[in-house]
Amino acid sequence: MSTLKILKKQIDFIVEVDKLKNVLRRTSPIGLKRLENSAEHSWQVVLSAILFVDHANEPIDLLKVVKMLVIHDVVEVDVGDTFHYEKAENHDLYARELAAAKRIFGLLEDPQNQELLALWQEFEARQTAEAKYAAAVDRIMAFFMNANNQGGTWAKHNIPRALALEKNAHIAEGSSRLWEMAQSILQEADQQGYMGKVS
Amino acid sequence: MSTLKILKKQIDFIVEVDKLKNVLRRTSPIGLKRLENSAEHSWQVVLSAILFVDHANEPIDLLKVVKMLVIHDVVEVDVGDTFHYEKAENHDLYARELAAAKRIFGLLEDPQNQELLALWQEFEARQTAEAKYAAAVDRIMAFFMNANNQGGTWAKHNIPRALALEKNAHIAEGSSRLWEMAQSILQEADQQGYMGKVS
Repeated sequence: MSTLKILKKQIDFIVEVDKLKNVLRRTSPIGLKRLENSAEHSWQVVLSAILFVDHANEPIDLLKVVKMLVIHDVVEVDVGDTFHYEKAENHDLYARELAAAKRIFGLLEDPQNQELLALWQEFEARQTAEAKYAAAVDRIMAFFMNANNQGGTWAKHNIPRALALEKNAHIAEGSSRLWEMAQSILQEADQQGYMGKVS
Repeated sequence: MSTLKILKKQIDFIVEVDKLKNVLRRTSPIGLKRLENSAEHSWQVVLSAILFVDHANEPIDLLKVVKMLVIHDVVEVDVGDTFHYEKAENHDLYARELAAAKRIFGLLEDPQNQELLALWQEFEARQTAEAKYAAAVDRIMAFFMNANNQGGTWAKHNIPRALALEKNAHIAEGSSRLWEMAQSILQEADQQGYMGKVS
């Protein structure tokens, strides 16, 4: 395949995943009433992964982490964003997301198609040092948003501190330091009355 | 300084530049009526720099390019976005942006503060292979948006093809292949009546 055709397919991919700017999450940007979209969230996690690199538990390939995070949400073009606290109820979520990943990365030529699909699967499996760290950064972001939005999704969706601790404990697998910070943020949020009440 | 204090300052920085989600550009996401913000644009240029790496004129350090692009717009938290075709009229723009860069990166501890300020300055100076390539990717993004938005900012702000060619010719310094594509997109846009008319 000619270089021009490879480039044209890359542009088709960029145009397709531009739709991520219209996929809404539950969190809001700090101080704004609107919900944030998955494109701006993806920027923020890439930025944060670069900033926090020295807090990873293990030595990591930062460029690989960046690649994982910049594409980690593209499946949402097809399946939408799933609220973290509702993922367990979506039994076929991974199957639907995998089908979306195959379709969307399939817009690209080989071997870029395979490279990005493999990175997406590695991120989802959370077994490698890079995937554990990338997932930690992805998850702690909501803590920063919520803590600065009077509890944000924790308050709005009545998430108690114990549930937030349980559902985000895997942050420690990527960065014990970020997990300490996350727990400290939760403690303070609880003291401020931002967390949901246990029913 | 303790690791905990370094982390707290990094979080302060992330909270500060979260404001980029509320800095509006002139372009719109494809098919949407609203303007896009600088955070989602930053995600898209990082993604595209990764995809287009084989189209760079010279061998580049891709992680360095990613770092440049993920922070290239943070100065807009203080000075806002400046439309590409109005930059020449803003004689003090660089001075204002540099002051913003010093303030915003100054929220971080040394040496991260200096590393990111230096990367921002390198991007702006456009002398290194990484900066030329990063600038090429940043500039061609509006071509993809406009071509898929019935001319977008070209039509809305009456930008003729010759002016678009003149003001974006530096794309060729980073990637002659992307510049060929940009010219081809402009030619087609002109044929479709999307470009501004020469008065």
